[in-house]
Amino acid sequence: MNDRLRWLRNYLKTQKIQGMIVSNPVNVYYLTNIEAEGILLLTLKENIYLTDDRYIEKVQRTLMIDDEIILSNIKDVSLEDYEGMFMFCENVGFEENYVTYAGYKEFMHKYKIHSLVETEGIIEKQRQIKDEKEIEYIKKACQITDDCFTYILNYIKRGMTEKQIADEIERYFKVNGGVPAFETIVASGTNSSMPHAVPTDRQISEGDAITIDMGCSYNGYCADMTRTIFVGKVDENVKQIYDLVLDNQQIALDEIKEGASIKIISRIVEGNFKVNGYDFMHALGHGVGMNVHETPVISSKSEKILKENMVIAIEPGIYIPGMYGVRIEDTVLVTKEGCIPLTKSSKEYCIIK
Amino acid sequence: MNDRLRWLRNYLKTQKIQGMIVSNPVNVYYLTNIEAEGILLLTLKENIYLTDDRYIEKVQRTLMIDDEIILSNIKDVSLEDYEGMFMFCENVGFEENYVTYAGYKEFMHKYKIHSLVETEGIIEKQRQIKDEKEIEYIKKACQITDDCFTYILNYIKRGMTEKQIADEIERYFKVNGGVPAFETIVASGTNSSMPHAVPTDRQISEGDAITIDMGCSYNGYCADMTRTIFVGKVDENVKQIYDLVLDNQQIALDEIKEGASIKIISRIVEGNFKVNGYDFMHALGHGVGMNVHETPVISSKSEKILKENMVIAIEPGIYIPGMYGVRIEDTVLVTKEGCIPLTKSSKEYCIIK
Repeated sequence: MNDRLRWLRNYLKTQKIQGMIVSNPVNVYYLTNIEAEGILLLTLKENIYLTDDRYIEKVQRTLMIDDEIILSNIKDVSLEDYEGMFMFCENVGFEENYVTYAGYKEFMHKYKIHSLVETEGIIEKQRQIKDEKEIEYIKKACQITDDCFTYILNYIKRGMTEKQIADEIERYFKVNGGVPAFETIVASGTNSSMPHAVPTDRQISEGDAITIDMGCSYNGYCADMTRTIFVGKVDENVKQIYDLVLDNQQIALDEIKEGASIKIISRIVEGNFKVNGYDFMHALGHGVGMNVHETPVISSKSEKILKENMVIAIEPGIYIPGMYGVRIEDTVLVTKEGCIPLTKSSKEYCIIK
Repeated sequence: MNDRLRWLRNYLKTQKIQGMIVSNPVNVYYLTNIEAEGILLLTLKENIYLTDDRYIEKVQRTLMIDDEIILSNIKDVSLEDYEGMFMFCENVGFEENYVTYAGYKEFMHKYKIHSLVETEGIIEKQRQIKDEKEIEYIKKACQITDDCFTYILNYIKRGMTEKQIADEIERYFKVNGGVPAFETIVASGTNSSMPHAVPTDRQISEGDAITIDMGCSYNGYCADMTRTIFVGKVDENVKQIYDLVLDNQQIALDEIKEGASIKIISRIVEGNFKVNGYDFMHALGHGVGMNVHETPVISSKSEKILKENMVIAIEPGIYIPGMYGVRIEDTVLVTKEGCIPLTKSSKEYCIIK
């Protein structure tokens, strides 16, 4: 059995949880390396992966004897088999943040479980702390993202559409060994005032601010970076906002280290924005890993503290409705003493000639 | 208020459900044209769309006065406001197949709802029957998919990788006004024996069978088509399987019309495969629309009948583990008298020279 599965089994013991149904495919992959549609059952006696004809062969190719995972095809599992799986478990954990209400009811019914207990994101919490291999993958994802940014600065020309630029970014990721970690945002001119703009057919033109939110995924691990760049010139009003956003990103980055309070870091930036008359429109940041958005949420509502080897994105932004917006985001590694930026593209005013 | 929202309100009345929380973003889009993160509340008095700073401006640009939807920013909603929204509702519907168990508990708590009732996929059921505009979009998505298939047949050369071909298909969709409706499958040689293969770096070579499962999404509506093609020659053993799959797809298509039993159609194909010694490894098909996989599921477990203006994909396949596989799939429109194929690419043996 691998270390992660062993860890989970030990953890469940400490919580006096006697079995667990793992349904979130990202968590299943984290625990087993299996990439398919199916669920992982930790029973008193065994680890069982349940899938169907579509994936059986693929999963068979992945699993080794040392994995200690029994592969079952649902078509061979009888109603009695289901009922037997957790028969001697007083309680069974499930992922309350992933399983639908209908799924919860189905579990109760199918496995005849008396007590399904919430596991409070235990696997997601464990995933927050990255190991060496994971950090290596994220570094590589960030490096491809940085390289792509350098490339795209030369690619962007007046008259191109937002969509065209977003497509070229995603093409670059693929050609360079990755895939897009999320739908690339290219928001130009007034579109940049919307934090979650979708690339449109709007053409890039003189004087535009362009917010580019991009990230590569490499070997299943994500990068997340945002830069706001300019076409021809930077408006003085925008410069003021740009500086405020950048200064506050740096203030946040300077506060990051093992043991730092997420609430306090967020409040500092929130306060600085308020003093200058700007709203804080979204969370300051989020964890980055197998999902591009994962826990911890970096917001003033959080009661959590940062830990060594978390990877988080810090992305303050200011948006003036109907006019323009500025967001600057980097993915960083939390260490004992501070943080190490993993995305490293320049944050000077970047002006397309 | 638009027809769809009016329909839902009327339907809820007939079910004596006094309010509803719509959380599935595809359903929200179907009902309102809003594409964002947020939820739609149908209360006794109003339609409310709840979102946050990130999307407020974008949604404001979409909504018109005739929509009769009140836009609220969650930061302006107090605990008392939440409690007041459904105050006089004896019961409130929610989407039990979409909302997580944790989300369900949050609804109960936040809105102080006494009775949250399951709505049994009512919106998804309504979405099964496509209107004129929706059919037009799906037709266009299918046409781009067909054109792409013609294009890609000329593009594929020995030595190219599966990934390269999948990327080119997706690039074609984007250049031609669409986006990929799902992750394109290009599975060659022994990889084709896995129904859900992911494109790899395997190079196309002489004698390969290549299963290509592809679909364009146009204006939010999907197409889904699969062809198995051959490189240089078709092995006689594969021909036999190809013919069996193709004949059975045709048998299924011939049975499709308003009022036909999904169970019977599926059983016919299942039986024909069994007689010839082959397992039926996945459902025969599925609905196609805003999601590439939606209800109705076309399988022998279904008790449903087909209805006019459903759009479904029929995709029988036979897979010989470790060797090869054949799948043939088309998206079709169900009519009173039969079905109209919307994807129309040739199903003759297609051999890359």
